Amino acid sequence: MDLVTFGEAMVRLTPPSFQRLEQARSLDVYVGGGELNVAVGAARLGLETRWISRLPENPLGRLVAGRAREQGVDVSHVRWTPGDRVGIYFAELGAAPRATSVLYDRDGSAISRIQPGDVDWGRAFAGARWFHTSGITPALGESAATVTAEALAGAKAAGLTVSYDLNYRAKLWTPARARQIQEPLMRHVDVLITTEEDTRVVFGIDGTGTDDRFTTVDAASYASVARALRERFGFKAVAITLRENPRVWLNTWSAIVCADGQVHTAPRYEVEIVDRIGAGDAFSAGVVYGALRLDGWARTVEFATALSALKHTVPGDLSMATREDVERLLKGASLRVTR
Amino acid sequence: MDLVTFGEAMVRLTPPSFQRLEQARSLDVYVGGGELNVAVGAARLGLETRWISRLPENPLGRLVAGRAREQGVDVSHVRWTPGDRVGIYFAELGAAPRATSVLYDRDGSAISRIQPGDVDWGRAFAGARWFHTSGITPALGESAATVTAEALAGAKAAGLTVSYDLNYRAKLWTPARARQIQEPLMRHVDVLITTEEDTRVVFGIDGTGTDDRFTTVDAASYASVARALRERFGFKAVAITLRENPRVWLNTWSAIVCADGQVHTAPRYEVEIVDRIGAGDAFSAGVVYGALRLDGWARTVEFATALSALKHTVPGDLSMATREDVERLLKGASLRVTR
Amino acid sequence: MDLVTFGEAMVRLTPPSFQRLEQARSLDVYVGGGELNVAVGAARLGLETRWISRLPENPLGRLVAGRAREQGVDVSHVRWTPGDRVGIYFAELGAAPRATSVLYDRDGSAISRIQPGDVDWGRAFAGARWFHTSGITPALGESAATVTAEALAGAKAAGLTVSYDLNYRAKLWTPARARQIQEPLMRHVDVLITTEEDTRVVFGIDGTGTDDRFTTVDAASYASVARALRERFGFKAVAITLRENPRVWLNTWSAIVCADGQVHTAPRYEVEIVDRIGAGDAFSAGVVYGALRLDGWARTVEFATALSALKHTVPGDLSMATREDVERLLKGASLRVTR
Amino acid sequence: MDLVTFGEAMVRLTPPSFQRLEQARSLDVYVGGGELNVAVGAARLGLETRWISRLPENPLGRLVAGRAREQGVDVSHVRWTPGDRVGIYFAELGAAPRATSVLYDRDGSAISRIQPGDVDWGRAFAGARWFHTSGITPALGESAATVTAEALAGAKAAGLTVSYDLNYRAKLWTPARARQIQEPLMRHVDVLITTEEDTRVVFGIDGTGTDDRFTTVDAASYASVARALRERFGFKAVAITLRENPRVWLNTWSAIVCADGQVHTAPRYEVEIVDRIGAGDAFSAGVVYGALRLDGWARTVEFATALSALKHTVPGDLSMATREDVERLLKGASLRVTR
Amino acid sequence: MDLVTFGEAMVRLTPPSFQRLEQARSLDVYVGGGELNVAVGAARLGLETRWISRLPENPLGRLVAGRAREQGVDVSHVRWTPGDRVGIYFAELGAAPRATSVLYDRDGSAISRIQPGDVDWGRAFAGARWFHTSGITPALGESAATVTAEALAGAKAAGLTVSYDLNYRAKLWTPARARQIQEPLMRHVDVLITTEEDTRVVFGIDGTGTDDRFTTVDAASYASVARALRERFGFKAVAITLRENPRVWLNTWSAIVCADGQVHTAPRYEVEIVDRIGAGDAFSAGVVYGALRLDGWARTVEFATALSALKHTVPGDLSMATREDVERLLKGASLRVTR
Amino acid sequence: MDLVTFGEAMVRLTPPSFQRLEQARSLDVYVGGGELNVAVGAARLGLETRWISRLPENPLGRLVAGRAREQGVDVSHVRWTPGDRVGIYFAELGAAPRATSVLYDRDGSAISRIQPGDVDWGRAFAGARWFHTSGITPALGESAATVTAEALAGAKAAGLTVSYDLNYRAKLWTPARARQIQEPLMRHVDVLITTEEDTRVVFGIDGTGTDDRFTTVDAASYASVARALRERFGFKAVAITLRENPRVWLNTWSAIVCADGQVHTAPRYEVEIVDRIGAGDAFSAGVVYGALRLDGWARTVEFATALSALKHTVPGDLSMATREDVERLLKGASLRVTR
Repeated sequence: MDLVTFGEAMVRLTPPSFQRLEQARSLDVYVGGGELNVAVGAARLGLETRWISRLPENPLGRLVAGRAREQGVDVSHVRWTPGDRVGIYFAELGAAPRATSVLYDRDGSAISRIQPGDVDWGRAFAGARWFHTSGITPALGESAATVTAEALAGAKAAGLTVSYDLNYRAKLWTPARARQIQEPLMRHVDVLITTEEDTRVVFGIDGTGTDDRFTTVDAASYASVARALRERFGFKAVAITLRENPRVWLNTWSAIVCADGQVHTAPRYEVEIVDRIGAGDAFSAGVVYGALRLDGWARTVEFATALSALKHTVPGDLSMATREDVERLLKGASLRVTR
Repeated sequence: MDLVTFGEAMVRLTPPSFQRLEQARSLDVYVGGGELNVAVGAARLGLETRWISRLPENPLGRLVAGRAREQGVDVSHVRWTPGDRVGIYFAELGAAPRATSVLYDRDGSAISRIQPGDVDWGRAFAGARWFHTSGITPALGESAATVTAEALAGAKAAGLTVSYDLNYRAKLWTPARARQIQEPLMRHVDVLITTEEDTRVVFGIDGTGTDDRFTTVDAASYASVARALRERFGFKAVAITLRENPRVWLNTWSAIVCADGQVHTAPRYEVEIVDRIGAGDAFSAGVVYGALRLDGWARTVEFATALSALKHTVPGDLSMATREDVERLLKGASLRVTR
Repeated sequence: MDLVTFGEAMVRLTPPSFQRLEQARSLDVYVGGGELNVAVGAARLGLETRWISRLPENPLGRLVAGRAREQGVDVSHVRWTPGDRVGIYFAELGAAPRATSVLYDRDGSAISRIQPGDVDWGRAFAGARWFHTSGITPALGESAATVTAEALAGAKAAGLTVSYDLNYRAKLWTPARARQIQEPLMRHVDVLITTEEDTRVVFGIDGTGTDDRFTTVDAASYASVARALRERFGFKAVAITLRENPRVWLNTWSAIVCADGQVHTAPRYEVEIVDRIGAGDAFSAGVVYGALRLDGWARTVEFATALSALKHTVPGDLSMATREDVERLLKGASLRVTR
Repeated sequence: MDLVTFGEAMVRLTPPSFQRLEQARSLDVYVGGGELNVAVGAARLGLETRWISRLPENPLGRLVAGRAREQGVDVSHVRWTPGDRVGIYFAELGAAPRATSVLYDRDGSAISRIQPGDVDWGRAFAGARWFHTSGITPALGESAATVTAEALAGAKAAGLTVSYDLNYRAKLWTPARARQIQEPLMRHVDVLITTEEDTRVVFGIDGTGTDDRFTTVDAASYASVARALRERFGFKAVAITLRENPRVWLNTWSAIVCADGQVHTAPRYEVEIVDRIGAGDAFSAGVVYGALRLDGWARTVEFATALSALKHTVPGDLSMATREDVERLLKGASLRVTR
Repeated sequence: MDLVTFGEAMVRLTPPSFQRLEQARSLDVYVGGGELNVAVGAARLGLETRWISRLPENPLGRLVAGRAREQGVDVSHVRWTPGDRVGIYFAELGAAPRATSVLYDRDGSAISRIQPGDVDWGRAFAGARWFHTSGITPALGESAATVTAEALAGAKAAGLTVSYDLNYRAKLWTPARARQIQEPLMRHVDVLITTEEDTRVVFGIDGTGTDDRFTTVDAASYASVARALRERFGFKAVAITLRENPRVWLNTWSAIVCADGQVHTAPRYEVEIVDRIGAGDAFSAGVVYGALRLDGWARTVEFATALSALKHTVPGDLSMATREDVERLLKGASLRVTR
Repeated sequence: MDLVTFGEAMVRLTPPSFQRLEQARSLDVYVGGGELNVAVGAARLGLETRWISRLPENPLGRLVAGRAREQGVDVSHVRWTPGDRVGIYFAELGAAPRATSVLYDRDGSAISRIQPGDVDWGRAFAGARWFHTSGITPALGESAATVTAEALAGAKAAGLTVSYDLNYRAKLWTPARARQIQEPLMRHVDVLITTEEDTRVVFGIDGTGTDDRFTTVDAASYASVARALRERFGFKAVAITLRENPRVWLNTWSAIVCADGQVHTAPRYEVEIVDRIGAGDAFSAGVVYGALRLDGWARTVEFATALSALKHTVPGDLSMATREDVERLLKGASLRVTR
C-alpha cells in the first residue's frame, strides 16, 4: 500500500447546464470528498491506495464505495453501519459574475459519528508509506476530530509520511476553532498543503501582494507564507496552490513547494474550467505521487500542478487523468486535436 | 380558502429508466409529500388551497415552495427558517418481481422541528372550509406530533371539516406508537382515509379475504373494516382505497366510502403504472373536492377514484389531472388517441 | 418513381417519460404527418417515393425536409415559401386509463395555404405508379381541399393507382363537412384505407359487434362495412385496420382487405406499444408496397399488418422497419433476443 | 400589490448544447416574455407582483401560468380563452462568430387578440404602485396596441408610476410604425428603459462613439441620448443598458440612469454568458425594485445592473437571483467557490 | 478467492426509449459479457471474485475494468495490451412483436487474440474454489478456444469446481463447430448451465413439449434433457433456465437443477422486463453462490432463480441485486411500495 | 452533379459535457468523415453533391447513409456489403490545457476493404464538375490507396476539377509512407488544401514564424509554403487554413489561397469553439462552392473562411450553415441576438 487517506465522501448533486438548483428537474450525480479525491487521483497514477471512512449500509453508501473502487481505490477498511446517512452536497456551477457555490447537507453523516476505536489503524497502516487527511475531517464533529488525531498519531507511529491539506471550510467551523483543533495536530504533519487564503484564516499567517478578492496572486508573497509556516510548525515541506480567477470559466493555476530551504515554482497554466472542485485534491495526489516516485520537489511540484490543471477540465470531483496525460502535458503538448 | 393542509414535503430524487440508485448518474427531481400532494390535487381541480409547513431559507426550500405555487397552492403560511434542511427521499421505480422502493433521508428536516406556536392557526384557518393532514406528520417527531394535535384541535374549533389519511410509515415509527399518538387525534376527524393494511397495522382492525401479499382485494371485507372504524371513532365517513397489484406495472384500483350508513363503491380501473406514489393523496384530494363540490358520496367516491387512477399515469408525486380530464374518464372515454 | 404522396408534415413535440405537457422541461422532436409517414414507410421498403408539400424557408422547414430525405424520400417537389410556418403538434403519451392525446397547433401552416397551381402535378407524377393522400389534407382549409381534388384528378389522369386514407380528424372539421368535401373525391380513389370508426363518422356506414369504446373488434362486422363501402363508391379494394385497445400499452392489431369479391384477413398481433401514432400510415405504406411488389391481396394484407404492428414498437411517427424486419416477423420469429 | 405588468409570454424552445434547430432531437422548454420576465425578476426580490395577459385554456396556457406562479407572480387577472394559441419562439444559442438567434412563431397568440375591455384595469391596478410594459405589447397587433394604450392611461389615472421598455422587435413591426404607435404612449411614461440602438431606430435619437456592430460602447454618448429622450418626452428617468459584445460568451454589461439632472453610472461587469435573453428585463425588474425599496437612483442603477449581470449566468429568460445574491455581488464577492 | 471467471466483456451501446439504432442521437453505455456478468453477480452477493480477460490500454479498456472493479470484482489478472480493441455491441430493446436484438462489432477484440501462456493460471487459481466460463469464450477464435481449454484443465488440476454455461451464439460459430470444440471440454465441467434451446442446437439433445417459438415451456421435458446431459457427460449437476416469452415486456422465468438423482424446480416468476440481457448470467452467479454458501441444490436453484428474476428489472447486463434483495423476494415480499 | 467526393464516414461517439470517455454513461452520436463532411457542407450551400463510399448493410451503415441524405447528399453510388463494419471514433472534447482527442476504432471498416472495380467511376462522374478526396482515404489500406488513385485518374480523365485535402493522420500511417503514396497522386490534383503542419510533415516543406505548438501563425510564412507547394506539384491553387489556438475554447481562424500568382488572405475570426472537428472540411466545401459559384479566389477564400468559422460553433462534424448564414457573417453581422 502506497497511500492511505481518511475522510468523508459525499454524494454530490449538480444541476446540468449552469442551472440554479431551483430550476433543476434533474441532477447529475457525482461522488466526492477531499481525501477520497486524493486517493483516486493517486490510484489513477498507479499508486496502491486505500481510503478509510464510515458509510451506511444502503444504496448511497454502496454508490460511494463503488465509485471509489471503480477508480482502483481499496475500500476494505471502510467501516459500515446500518444507521446514519451519506452526506450530500449540492453544487451550482457558476459563470462570472456568479461564483460556483455549494450547499452542504452533511449533518449526521456516518463519518461525522465515527468513534475512537472504529478503525484499526494498525492494520490499516500495515505496509503503507504515506498518510493523507485534511482539515475537513476534524471539522465534522468532536469525535471525528478525536479520530483524526488518533489517525495522525497512528500514522506517525507506524512510520508513514504524513500530508495534511488545511482545507478550511467556513460552513463547518470558525477560524478560532479550526486553529485550536488543528494546531496540536500539526506536529504529526510532514507536508502541509494549503492556500494562502486558508493559511491566513486559520493560522493568521499573511502574505502580501494579493488583492482582497484573490483575483491575482504574487508568488513571492506566497513563498514568505510558506516559510513562515515551516518555521512555526517544522514541516518538511509546504505546498501552496496559486489560483487567479478573474473569471469563473478561465483561471490561471500554479503552485509552489517550499522545502529543503528552497522554493520550487511550477509553470502557470491557463485553465478553461469545466469543474474546479477537486483541483486542490488532485494537486495533493500529485504531491504524494511525486514524493514517492519522482526525483525531487522541483519535478514534484511541476507534476502535481499539471495533474491538477487537468482536473479543472473534467466534470466531477475526481481526477480522471492518467500518468500519460500528465506527461504529455509536461512535454508541452499543443492544444490541437490529437488524432 | 377551501382547503388547508399541513405536513412535510420532500425533494424526491428518482433514477431514470428503472435504474437502481447505485447505477444512477443523474436523478430526476420531484417534490412530494402527502399533504402537499393533496393540496396540489385539489388546487388543480379549482379549489382554493393552502399548504402549511416549515422550510429552510435555501434553494431547496425555495424549490419546494415554488413547485407548490406552480400548481396554484398558497404557501403564504409556510414558516421559513434560516437553519435546518429539506428532507430528501430517493425512490427506485420497480418492475415485477422488484417492488418500487423508497430510501428516506428526512431526519432533521425543518418541519420535524416545528414548535407549538410556530403557526398561527387562527389566521391560517380564517375563512377556510376543510383541513387535511395525515399520519406522517405526527410521526416526524414529538414536537411535530404536538403541533399536529394543535392543528386538528384548531381546525375543529374553527368549524372546518377535518380529513385524516392514516398513511402508516413503518420507517418512521412503530405500530404501537402510531396507535398511541393517533387514537386521541381521531376525535377531531370527520373523514378517515386509509387502506385496509394501515387500518390493521395501526388500529388492529382486520378485514377478511385479502391474501397476505395484498395482490387481490375483496370489497366486502373492506366494507366491514370501514364500518368497524366508524363505530370505534365516530367518523362521518371512512374512505378506503383498494389496490390489487399482481404486477408492478399493472394494478387494479378502486375505492369505497362508507357514510350515511351506506357503502359506496367506485368502479375498478386497470391502471398502467408510470408512478404510483401519490395516488392515495390524489384520492384524498378527490374526496375533498367531491365533498365540497359534488352531490353526495356516491359521486364523490367515483370522482376521487378516477382522479387517483389518473395519478398513476404521470411521473412524480403530484396529480397533474384537471377536472376536465377526470370528467372525460368518468364519461367513459376510450383509450384511443384523442385527436 | 413508385409512389407520390401529398400532405402536411408537422414538427411533433412529445414530453419524455409519460410526462404531461405541463410538466415538460424538455420535448422530444419528431417529424410526422400521414402522407409523409406513408412515403417514409414505403421508401424504407425499397420503393422510390416522393412527398409533396409546402414548407417555409426556415430552420423548421429544413428540419422537416431533412428528416424526409434521411429516410430516402424525394422532396424535390416541395414548394418553399418565405412566409408562413410549420405546423406543430404536441403529443402526450398515455397509460391506462389515460389515453395518448394530441394538442394541435397547426393553424396557418404553409401547406394549409397552398394554392391551385402551386404544384406542377404533371411533372410530379411523371413516371410514377401510385398516388396516396388522406382525409387530413382537404381538412386543412378550402384551398387545400381544392388542391387535393386537383391532385387526385391529376393522378387519375396520369394513370396512377390512387389510395386514400379516410383519417378523420375531429379537431379539423365536422363529420358533415368531411362527408361533403370527400364524397366527390372518392371517384378518383382505387383503394380506400380506413377504420370502422372513421367510416361510421364520415360516411354513416356502420358495422356491428363493436362496443362503444372500441375495445374489442369483430372482423365479420368489419367485412360488412368494407363491402358497403365498395358498393357505394366502387373502390377496387377497401382496407380496414382493426385495433383492440383494452389498455394503452397493449393492443391487438390486425386488418382486412376486401377486394376481388374476397375478404383477406391478416393474423392478429399483440402489440406492446411504444408509440402508436403512425401505425395506420405504416399500414398504408405496406398496402402500396404489397400491391406493387407482392403477389395478391392476401399476401399484401399480411405484409402491411406486420409492418404496421412493428411501427407500434418505435418512437415517433415514422416506420423504422426494413423489408427484412417484416419478413422475419412473417416467418414467425420468436420474441427471444436475436444474437 | 407593488408591481403590475402586462404583455405576452411565450413557450421558448431551445436546442441543447449549442445545436442548430435542424439538429435538435430534443428541445429545452422555457417560458419567457418581456413583461413576465420583469414580474418574475421583481417577485423574486420580494415585491408583490401581478402579470396580466391572455392565455388559452390548454396545457401550454397552463404551463405558462404555472411557471409564473412558481416564481411568486400573481396570475389571477390573466384572461383565459378556449380558443387561440400560446406563441412559441425557438432560440438557438450561438458562439462567435455565430450570434444567438431567435425564430418567432407567435402569430395568432391569445394575447395578440386581446380586445379593449378584456381586462378590468381598475381592479387590476387597485392598490398597486407601479405599472410596467414594453414596446413588444403594442407591436403584437392593432387591438393589442389599443389595449396597451388603455392600460397605460389606466395606470396613470390610478396614480401608478409607469415604466416602459422600448424593446424594439424588427420582426414585429417597422421603425416607422413603432414610432407612430409609441410616441403618443410616451406621455404616460415616467421611466423609460431602453438601449442606445433601440432609441436610434425608434426615435431617431443618436449617440456617438458606438461602432456599427455595437461591440464597444461609450457611456458619455449614452448620457447624451438619455438627456435627449428626457427632453423630448419629459420622462422622470431614462435608463439605458450598455452592452459590449466582442464575443458571444463574454460581454461587458453596465447601465446608466439619467434622472434628477444627473447621470448615474453603474460599474461594468464582465459577464460569462449562459443565456443573455431576459437580461434587459432583469434590469427593468431591478429598476422597479430600486425605485420602490432603495435609496435613490445611484443605488438603483447599481442594484439593477448587478441583478441583470447575474441573469446572464442562468439558462432561460427568467432571473433566478435572490436579493441576497445581488447584495453579495454588490459587496464585491470573489469568484472563488462559496463553501 | 471464491470464484474466478474468464471471458470477454464488451462495451454495450443501447439507444434509449426503445429507439432503433438508426434513430439514435445518443447511446447509453453499459459494460457486459457473460463471464464478467457472473463475476459481478457473485461479487455483489459477497463472494470474492476475479475476472480474467485481455484488454487494450486505452480509455475503453479502462472503462471496462473500472466497471468491473466498481462492483467489487478483482481485475488484477487482466492482461493489458497496447494494441487491439474492446469489442462493442449494440443492443436494441424491443417490444412485441419486435424482439430485442443485438448487433455485434467484436471482431479483433483484445480477448479474441489471447495466446496460450498469456495468463498464469497457476497464480490466477491460487486459493480459489470455483471456476466459471462459457461457450462464448472458445467461440471467439482459435487461440481463444485453446486458452479456454488451458483454463479448464488448469482449474480442474488446481481442484476448483468448474461450471460452464453453454451460451450458444449463432453469430460467432456454427452448431457443428460449437459441438466439435466443446465436447472435449465437457470432461472438465462439473456443473453445466444451459437452456433447452442451446442443448438441442449444440448437442442435439431434445426435450419435448416446447413449441417452436419457445413461448411456453414444460418443466418435465426439461428434466429429461437435463438427465440426458448428465448421462452423456457425467456432470455433477445440470441447471436449465426456463423462460416463456409470449411478449417482450412480460415473461415467466424459472429454472431446474438436476443433481443427486433429483430434479429441483424453482418457483416461476412473472417478470416485467426492463432489460433481460444478463439474466442467464445472474442465474449462474446464483448457482455458484448457492453451491458455495447455501445448503443444497433445492435452496440453490430457488436463490439463483430469484436473483436472476430480479436481473430482468434493471438496465444493463449486470445484476444489481444484493443478497438482501434476493432474500426479501424469497420471503415473499409483496409488490407494494416499500416505505 | 456539381461535386463528387470519395472517402470514409464513421460513427462518432462523444461523451457529453466534457466528460472523459471513462466517465461516460451516454455518448452522443454523430456521423463524420472528411469527404462526407465536404459533401454535406457543399450540399447545404445548394450544390448538387454525391458521396461515394462502401458501407455494410446493417443499422449503422443505414445510419451513416441516412445522415448524408438528410443533408441533401446523394448516396446512390455507395457500395453496400453484407459483411464488414462501420468504423467508429470516439472524440473527447477538451478544455485548456487538455486538448480535444480522438480514439479511432476504424480497422476493418467496409471502406478500408474497397477493391478496384467496386465503383463505376465513369457513371459516378457523369455530368459532374468537381471531385474531392483527402489524404485519409489512401491511408486506410493498400486497396483503398489503389482505389483512390483510380478515382483521381478517373476524375481527371472525365474532365473534373480535382481538389485534395492533405489531412495527415499520424494514427493511420507514417510520414514516409504518406509521402510515398501521395506524391504520385498529386499530378491529378488542381487544388491542394492543407495546413502548414501537414505540409511540413508529409512533404517536408517548412514555413517560418510558427512556434512549435502552433499557437500563433504567421501568414507570410504560410504564403511561402503555398508557393513552394505550387512550384513542386504545379497546383492551380493552394489553400492553407490558419489556426491559432492559445486555448481550446477560443481560437483564431483564417486562411489563404495562393493562385494566379497571388496570395489571397481572408479576414481572421475569433471563434468560440463548440466543436472544431470538421472545420477544415467546411473550408474545403467553401472552396469548391466559391470556385464553382463565386467570382474569383479572393471572394472564395473569404467565403470558405467564414463558412468554416461558423462550423466551429455547432456540435458534430457537419457544417450546419446555410448560404444565408455565411452571407450575413460576411456582411459584418454583429453578435447581438437576432430578433
